[in-house]
Amino acid sequence: MPKLRAHNIAVSLDGFGTGEGQSLETPFGHAGGRLMGWFFPTRTFHRITGQEGGTTGVDDDFAAAAWEGIGAEIMGRNKFGWQRGPWEDESWRGWWGDEPPFHTPVVVLTHHPRPDIAVGDTTFLFRDAAPEAALAEATELAGGLDVRLGGGPSMIREFLDADLVDHLHLVVVPIVLGRGVRIWDGQEGLEERFDIVSTPSPSGVVHVVLDRRAS
Amino acid sequence: MPKLRAHNIAVSLDGFGTGEGQSLETPFGHAGGRLMGWFFPTRTFHRITGQEGGTTGVDDDFAAAAWEGIGAEIMGRNKFGWQRGPWEDESWRGWWGDEPPFHTPVVVLTHHPRPDIAVGDTTFLFRDAAPEAALAEATELAGGLDVRLGGGPSMIREFLDADLVDHLHLVVVPIVLGRGVRIWDGQEGLEERFDIVSTPSPSGVVHVVLDRRAS
Repeated sequence: MPKLRAHNIAVSLDGFGTGEGQSLETPFGHAGGRLMGWFFPTRTFHRITGQEGGTTGVDDDFAAAAWEGIGAEIMGRNKFGWQRGPWEDESWRGWWGDEPPFHTPVVVLTHHPRPDIAVGDTTFLFRDAAPEAALAEATELAGGLDVRLGGGPSMIREFLDADLVDHLHLVVVPIVLGRGVRIWDGQEGLEERFDIVSTPSPSGVVHVVLDRRAS
Repeated sequence: MPKLRAHNIAVSLDGFGTGEGQSLETPFGHAGGRLMGWFFPTRTFHRITGQEGGTTGVDDDFAAAAWEGIGAEIMGRNKFGWQRGPWEDESWRGWWGDEPPFHTPVVVLTHHPRPDIAVGDTTFLFRDAAPEAALAEATELAGGLDVRLGGGPSMIREFLDADLVDHLHLVVVPIVLGRGVRIWDGQEGLEERFDIVSTPSPSGVVHVVLDRRAS
């Protein structure tokens, strides 16, 4: 059975998956680059952004796993861009330039659908759908491979609420953000459904992997 | 200079230092024994509670450090007991029986002072004092040794707010409590004042140590 997997989901010590005040200039709000500071040096980040080099090691091992065996992604509208409400600017094609790193269909969940767009060899499909329906469509699109749950934190919570998440890789970053979007709200008792293993990295972050227990 | 050190402060993944609904039967509220489950098997816990045996290893190493070089403790009133407001039952002498594990003076911060009491060779002194004054008295009592900041989470925050904490050892437990007392509230940017090192344990918890940066 294909799985639904979230990877490289950074969380502050106080449980925020992104900061406050997202804008064009600040995709992570006041968190700036701090939540993903462990990711940028990795060989995987270099590779997916068309650069040479980058570090290997624990962080890169985890980063790379996100790109293995994935046939489609589901992401929240706030990962796709900073606009809220009805689309005022449909020329926005995501943060990722002409060749987004996904190279698969990407289902973008939004209450304000717009026509699908192809950017490079990534196709963004805008859907106003519940988690179950979004997963059904993404699974179909993935053609037997797994589906990546891309975030942000609000949609991770929605899919956890619906108990659809098989694998969740969090990266606990040793910062206290104080404000933003919490990833754990409403998740009391989550640990009863998952096996949890923590692995520290020399970079200072701790990789926390939750795998759904066989029922 | 003697230091102010907090040790073995357990925190859930979602940042709660204790659960909701403390009572005589549930010192950690609905968290039950889950926050301290890593601690109970250790040789240190066995030793301080007068038992033989117990585990050695990462958890015990961290647990044991809390008892080294300490001459006094400061604790919050809710660590001492479950009563709130004016003391209705002054016969309460803490959760720890006839021989509490402290063996030093313990300053209990409360807005409702009561006469000092000696239990075994621990003396509890009840003080309505600001963090600075409490630390001054505890430091005097410690006779050149360090002072332990005992918790709970609310008083840890108060001492962090006052920038009095030199060393903070947290234990991140892989559970989502959902409710209780948060340890990180109001601590945005804390990482700028501390060096932070994380160490995982085979038990599944991650020990996170914050040491105040030399200024």
